[in-house]
Amino acid sequence: MPRTAEAKQRLREEQREHILEAAKHVFARKGLAATVDDVAIHAGVSHGLAYRYFANKEAIFFAIIKQALQAPSADLQRVLDMPGTPGERLKWLLSAFVESRRHPETFLLLDQVLSSQTVPNELRELVRKRSQDLQSVLRQLIIEGQETFEVAAGDPDQLVRAIFAYVDGIPRWALYDPEHYQEHFPDADIFLRLLQP
Amino acid sequence: MPRTAEAKQRLREEQREHILEAAKHVFARKGLAATVDDVAIHAGVSHGLAYRYFANKEAIFFAIIKQALQAPSADLQRVLDMPGTPGERLKWLLSAFVESRRHPETFLLLDQVLSSQTVPNELRELVRKRSQDLQSVLRQLIIEGQETFEVAAGDPDQLVRAIFAYVDGIPRWALYDPEHYQEHFPDADIFLRLLQP
Repeated sequence: MPRTAEAKQRLREEQREHILEAAKHVFARKGLAATVDDVAIHAGVSHGLAYRYFANKEAIFFAIIKQALQAPSADLQRVLDMPGTPGERLKWLLSAFVESRRHPETFLLLDQVLSSQTVPNELRELVRKRSQDLQSVLRQLIIEGQETFEVAAGDPDQLVRAIFAYVDGIPRWALYDPEHYQEHFPDADIFLRLLQP
Repeated sequence: MPRTAEAKQRLREEQREHILEAAKHVFARKGLAATVDDVAIHAGVSHGLAYRYFANKEAIFFAIIKQALQAPSADLQRVLDMPGTPGERLKWLLSAFVESRRHPETFLLLDQVLSSQTVPNELRELVRKRSQDLQSVLRQLIIEGQETFEVAAGDPDQLVRAIFAYVDGIPRWALYDPEHYQEHFPDADIFLRLLQP
């Protein structure tokens, strides 16, 4: 039975996705020193197949980052449309932040984009812009939550920074002690105490 | 007037200290890709003078890390000798943690030691051991603080991880947005809410 065009298309998408998933792990460990070959080996595919989907390692890296930015965008849109008090929406968003860090790979890549001097400017600006969008929404919810006395009083910008410090710090442990990353992963409840009046 | 041996010795120590201070900034930005020349330029001293104090860049890096580990050791000893309830001692230690991050350079270097695969094993083990000592003291104080109801109930290991996530995350902002690092630096009070019952 010949494959339909649709089935072929689906297979291509699955292969591309599989290569991207492998690439996340490879880049998270090796940074931009990783090669297309490293990715192909980790994905268990041939060198040639990897190159059929991606022209070079920069293209792979770019695709991962673009994908990594979709999840927080969806969370942001959802929190803006959501019913509930500012404090409730903030708690939902912060819980989503923490839970997503149970898979640290993409966050380690975002960290590399923001901290490395060898990443293309275009990519860094994309990540920085998205981070600023997140910060604005957080800041707004914090101010509204302070007005309803659901969030501790004080400089909202400091609290934004504290929240980001926490969620940026969690994935470092996947580098420091990868074997025990899932063990003792801190529940969102602990994180939410940062808001507590 | 000829310099006494003592004055010469003091001058040597000051020069060495000055080179180390410059090296902290250079390594924090460039990682192990930094060279002795980069350090000499940043310190405003000659190539030859830098080499009089340090055989190679590994020796500089090692000296910085050894120095960086002294401050938390002193804090640890002080907190063990300190009067007060477990909650009070814990708050003192955590405030010291946060305040020390106002100068992020050495913490970025410690991060590199723990996360890079190119750092000598001996150095990584030294930093890891010190981190484990800190974790043990924190864990013990948390358990004692839970018994006196000064610290929120729950898995002490998760709280240790949360505390480290926070203090490991703060210095990332010196890489992401160095211009605004001191602005909106989060007060220790925010951090201490992580303990709040």
